Amino acid sequence: MKIYYQWEAGAYSNLASIIAKENLNIETADIIWLSDFPEVWANIWDNAIWVLPIENSTAWSIHENLYNFLRYDFKIIWEIDLEIKHCLLSNETDISKIKEAYSHPQALSQCHNYLNHHKIKPIIFYDTAWAAKEIKEKNMYWVRAIASSLAGEIYWLNKISEDIQDQNWNTTRFFVVVPKDSKLEFGIKQNKTSIIFETKNIPASLYKCLWAFATNNINLTKIESMPSFKDPFSYIFWLDFEWNMQESNIINSLNELKFFTKEIKVLWEY
Amino acid sequence: MKIYYQWEAGAYSNLASIIAKENLNIETADIIWLSDFPEVWANIWDNAIWVLPIENSTAWSIHENLYNFLRYDFKIIWEIDLEIKHCLLSNETDISKIKEAYSHPQALSQCHNYLNHHKIKPIIFYDTAWAAKEIKEKNMYWVRAIASSLAGEIYWLNKISEDIQDQNWNTTRFFVVVPKDSKLEFGIKQNKTSIIFETKNIPASLYKCLWAFATNNINLTKIESMPSFKDPFSYIFWLDFEWNMQESNIINSLNELKFFTKEIKVLWEY
Repeated sequence: MKIYYQWEAGAYSNLASIIAKENLNIETADIIWLSDFPEVWANIWDNAIWVLPIENSTAWSIHENLYNFLRYDFKIIWEIDLEIKHCLLSNETDISKIKEAYSHPQALSQCHNYLNHHKIKPIIFYDTAWAAKEIKEKNMYWVRAIASSLAGEIYWLNKISEDIQDQNWNTTRFFVVVPKDSKLEFGIKQNKTSIIFETKNIPASLYKCLWAFATNNINLTKIESMPSFKDPFSYIFWLDFEWNMQESNIINSLNELKFFTKEIKVLWEY
Repeated sequence: MKIYYQWEAGAYSNLASIIAKENLNIETADIIWLSDFPEVWANIWDNAIWVLPIENSTAWSIHENLYNFLRYDFKIIWEIDLEIKHCLLSNETDISKIKEAYSHPQALSQCHNYLNHHKIKPIIFYDTAWAAKEIKEKNMYWVRAIASSLAGEIYWLNKISEDIQDQNWNTTRFFVVVPKDSKLEFGIKQNKTSIIFETKNIPASLYKCLWAFATNNINLTKIESMPSFKDPFSYIFWLDFEWNMQESNIINSLNELKFFTKEIKVLWEY
């Protein structure tokens, strides 16, 4: 069995993959990084698991991955909320000389106060782990990298400071996905469902759709509108809800949702 | 007057800044690029205009910029929906030899079919315009860049192919913002409003909030939930609505929205 993630070794996606491996009873799985994720989506393999970043609490939602759920038949089996803890990594232990740090712009922005306070100039790099790899491989002594603690271990860099992000509550949400017809069993308790739906062209359509959940006491935990690409005024909605009620309430709300939607795609329970 | 945008000259933000300059009757404004946007948000200048990417139709919403609207007193004065048309740029005119292309991973992913068909290997680079600048400055004859047509002109590169993205409907939405107390007048017709609100901790709170718009016949054009960072189960919502009804309907819906919200921040009409 193989677990795939995107970016360099030491990326936060790598950390999420390790957590998936430890918690899904798949201790024998290999963790493999891939640079070309569109390729992955188009080639559904058996016994393969993907760990995909979906949204970061402070920075973004990755619509591209959400659209891929419409295009391909994958199911979500688990979600991981990974706390992002940035470290300042260096080849050098005497850090007083070093006045620049490489990292992904979001990481640099998330450590703005720290960098400002220590008068360190942020230098944009494509990826956090890649920045760590670069300063190690090119033996750079005049610059630091901001990346995960794991990246520090992988590239044998000194950890100068930990937890240097401004906001302590910085998490990235990952989905663990498998092909829809995968026979893999993980024995995880499911407590959430993600769906994507397209509303009918009727007035107050979203309001009517949410009525299906409100009247069945189902808690929503995420909602996001995205263009449907069918015409400029047509939207689809990504919605997550909790299994806070009995199954009959969930079935009722999905049945009632059909009154006001053209299409519903259930991305599985996780 | 100055118009600021992020990234290198030739970035899609640069294109959006040119459109803002042409349409807001500020022909004398200078267009300036900045690498450090957190710095911009913290330093509100008079007579300054920012052009900020907010969401891409296929790829992402930039929550970071949305949160900054909560933190700082800016107002949105205009929005730009920029169609993203990627070009293949090269130092070389005989392209048969060139088998690699540098670009931002989103641009590479958006041109997946084209690259695949022409057997060109995608190489990840931090930014589209930066990739174009790099191959020009380092005089690279063995690699191409995927970037805007403007980047091709700025860096004097040959435009090998245009419109190479897989999906023709790829737009990025930019907000043009000024400090809240800015006295600048642009004479633009306003037809949309963006608000951010936090719901009360009551059952079906979002459903109740949307009731305020549904019963006043106000069309919503975007909705997105984001964590409020106050506690793990507290959400704020970003919502855009059209001025499709008379002003009294809009005022009524905002007044009725107050019944179910702790706080509403109006980010201005645009």
